[in-house]
Amino acid sequence: MKRFVDLGELEREEVLSLLELARHLERQPEPHALAGRVLGLLFFNPSLRTLASCQVAMARLGGTSFVITPGQGSWQLEWRDGVVMDGAAAEHVREGLPVLAGYCDALGVRLFAAGQDLAADLAERDFTRLAALIDKPLINLESAMNHPCQALADWKTLDDLGVPRGGRFVLGWAYHPRALPLAVPAAALHMAALRGMEVVVLRPEGFALPPALLQRARQAAARSGGAVRETADRHEALAGAHVLYVKEWGATAAYGDAAADAALRAPLREWCVREEWFAAAPQCRVMHCLPVRRNVAIDAAVLDGPRSVVQREAHNRLPAQMAVLHRLLRH
Amino acid sequence: MKRFVDLGELEREEVLSLLELARHLERQPEPHALAGRVLGLLFFNPSLRTLASCQVAMARLGGTSFVITPGQGSWQLEWRDGVVMDGAAAEHVREGLPVLAGYCDALGVRLFAAGQDLAADLAERDFTRLAALIDKPLINLESAMNHPCQALADWKTLDDLGVPRGGRFVLGWAYHPRALPLAVPAAALHMAALRGMEVVVLRPEGFALPPALLQRARQAAARSGGAVRETADRHEALAGAHVLYVKEWGATAAYGDAAADAALRAPLREWCVREEWFAAAPQCRVMHCLPVRRNVAIDAAVLDGPRSVVQREAHNRLPAQMAVLHRLLRH
Amino acid sequence: MKRFVDLGELEREEVLSLLELARHLERQPEPHALAGRVLGLLFFNPSLRTLASCQVAMARLGGTSFVITPGQGSWQLEWRDGVVMDGAAAEHVREGLPVLAGYCDALGVRLFAAGQDLAADLAERDFTRLAALIDKPLINLESAMNHPCQALADWKTLDDLGVPRGGRFVLGWAYHPRALPLAVPAAALHMAALRGMEVVVLRPEGFALPPALLQRARQAAARSGGAVRETADRHEALAGAHVLYVKEWGATAAYGDAAADAALRAPLREWCVREEWFAAAPQCRVMHCLPVRRNVAIDAAVLDGPRSVVQREAHNRLPAQMAVLHRLLRH
Repeated sequence: MKRFVDLGELEREEVLSLLELARHLERQPEPHALAGRVLGLLFFNPSLRTLASCQVAMARLGGTSFVITPGQGSWQLEWRDGVVMDGAAAEHVREGLPVLAGYCDALGVRLFAAGQDLAADLAERDFTRLAALIDKPLINLESAMNHPCQALADWKTLDDLGVPRGGRFVLGWAYHPRALPLAVPAAALHMAALRGMEVVVLRPEGFALPPALLQRARQAAARSGGAVRETADRHEALAGAHVLYVKEWGATAAYGDAAADAALRAPLREWCVREEWFAAAPQCRVMHCLPVRRNVAIDAAVLDGPRSVVQREAHNRLPAQMAVLHRLLRH
Repeated sequence: MKRFVDLGELEREEVLSLLELARHLERQPEPHALAGRVLGLLFFNPSLRTLASCQVAMARLGGTSFVITPGQGSWQLEWRDGVVMDGAAAEHVREGLPVLAGYCDALGVRLFAAGQDLAADLAERDFTRLAALIDKPLINLESAMNHPCQALADWKTLDDLGVPRGGRFVLGWAYHPRALPLAVPAAALHMAALRGMEVVVLRPEGFALPPALLQRARQAAARSGGAVRETADRHEALAGAHVLYVKEWGATAAYGDAAADAALRAPLREWCVREEWFAAAPQCRVMHCLPVRRNVAIDAAVLDGPRSVVQREAHNRLPAQMAVLHRLLRH
Repeated sequence: MKRFVDLGELEREEVLSLLELARHLERQPEPHALAGRVLGLLFFNPSLRTLASCQVAMARLGGTSFVITPGQGSWQLEWRDGVVMDGAAAEHVREGLPVLAGYCDALGVRLFAAGQDLAADLAERDFTRLAALIDKPLINLESAMNHPCQALADWKTLDDLGVPRGGRFVLGWAYHPRALPLAVPAAALHMAALRGMEVVVLRPEGFALPPALLQRARQAAARSGGAVRETADRHEALAGAHVLYVKEWGATAAYGDAAADAALRAPLREWCVREEWFAAAPQCRVMHCLPVRRNVAIDAAVLDGPRSVVQREAHNRLPAQMAVLHRLLRH
């Protein structure tokens, strides 16, 4: 494995092999596997689980890491091409990225969607540009439309919980004060499809996932025996569901238009996950990648109750990260 | 030892044993004692000594650490319960804390007093809530009313300097432009009482320490042969003192009321420690936990002169931290 | 070697020996050379290469490092003497520096020029004051008028590229929206002189380097067989040049006067390095310490073209840093 930027780049068997490695490293950390190895971590955006789990994963495997946060102790970085750099950014990624990659054995990069141009974000224009600048193993720590480390941890969580391969996985939209990126819903959609699940995207009007994402997920589902569909009918979606994977995202019908997005989401505050949603799905688990706004996206009683598996999900970020790093850096 | 959150939770003999371990590790660092161990450090508030000494202590013992700073590279964290999270904080400590604890072998947390409600701060309402969220060894890196790592280093400093167990320890208020928390004075008070010293709290009117703190310290003093009293009479307090432990803190008579606090402290700028204070205590040492504002809390001549032991005190944070980590994490 | 704060403190033979060590460590990193060693890193100013390469250098040699950034997670630090500290800074370097040094085996400090008083900056008043506070090996990670780690990496880059010892080294001013410090031009000037090169400082009127820097470089050149001169004639300077070392710096004729500096630089936007500059120097290499503003200081086509060696230069920061740390900390 040369890089880990998109679960969709891997065959299903490769993902299964990574998951097996994650389970193995969870039991037996191999404390010297990455001795002498250095992971560079470049965070354009905030993080808690990714930031911590990457550092701990390297430490647990005997390696080291360092963190660069542009604009906080490091220069602001420009990533647009062709620009005359007379603004706030002192350095361009064309210089900064290869330099950082040159110092380390692998580089992890988090760069959220610019959120202005849906086609550009779907094409991963910025992340692809960054990836092309370096010749070291690259780990996507969340890009415009992907979060493969999260997806790998989610898959492991489903396995840990014994959720059937063909079970119903509801990717359910939830309210948030602002338009959040599509990275996690896109990654979760593809993961569940590739796992072979019956995927139902539950979202209000105006928040349908982009057709390109659905089409790609349907191709993965076709190879794995799964299925993908969308609905705005909560009752129908949740009846008999095994998992409700909750996520907040921006209005795709108003991508890049904050005012229009706000108008679309304003009446949707009741899309806050509540216990009564599960009347017809008593065993349904609730997943969320975190961070989550309590009593905004998910009711506190649900988060604190027995159907929430958000802690196990977050904890699985660590063995998933260890597996990815082991696969990329272990010779 | 399962956690290190309050020196008052330990028996005197346990503290003495930690101090012996600190002295041992100062001479012989045991560079592999904590190999493979990971310490998580969560700083809600700024730090220099605590931030550096925790990381160095882990490194000196062969372990690793990582730092999370909410609002700087990581999400702002909410810690109030029951709130509808539609403000700046993206994540609640109920999610974030267990996640971080799950990644590491011990977690250190710094969370200053909210400074609004004295009873809540005395009850350590926020820190106690955090502590209840995790099942890993926890280290208090300064809470509303405590700073046990500082207290342990202070005790070692007194021992290093040969200050008699029953010597006079003056905890002396000093001027500061703003109301600072009671954590360090509370911790120093208890430490000196538990060590068996004659503790005199020297402070102006309006700045008396809360009765609950004094009572608890008197109980510790009773077990150790010490004593605790308060005074506003500088001359009487310092005559024959072995140590003046200088600290700035807010007006307890106006807790949470910035304007009233400012009015109380405005006339007190001469509470800046000066050499002439020590006419009747020529051998008296000056301690301060740092950071200290030169020529505001302590005159530069005193800080740079022979009676200041602030450097030794700060340096003792390292062996104290090593001892705490060794005790918590060494199997 | 007790400290590494100024290439001018070293004999030419000492520099050559460090360069040999850097080449050796580039081939064979000695992964346990600094086991158990801790480097403290104190950054008053932003950084990317220095911040990353220092941490990676310690990791590659088996040691550890920690980073303190005043004002970001740590207290703001005052460094003026004699001041009454009632402003934003909570701590003085007179306390903070010795404390940090006491925790670690070596301390690296970055402190840019105050930029108000040329004489004070030329005398390295602030950095010298810091250096006097600590008794551990100190590494200058950029001070008012020096950047010796950069200079060492630059020398190695010249060697790697086979640039003749007596070749022409043009230190060429470039446009930048603001007045940048003289640290890098001063260090590059001295480095090239000490290497024995024909150094030509190419800059517009008002931007002549301070005579003290030139005189010191000429002394180094005299010992090494080199020469140092200044010119404003680009064509003459670049004809036959081996290297154009590009750097932005403030108007020395208006040091500390932002308005006058702005007036002097406003008409100089065409001092953006372009391919046509090299008509009479087809083999000339372009160096820059980075960060660089594309299409402001150097045209993108030059940076992306074959004469740019900025990546090799940046990469050499790592072996240079390893050599310095190895020399300072290896027993």
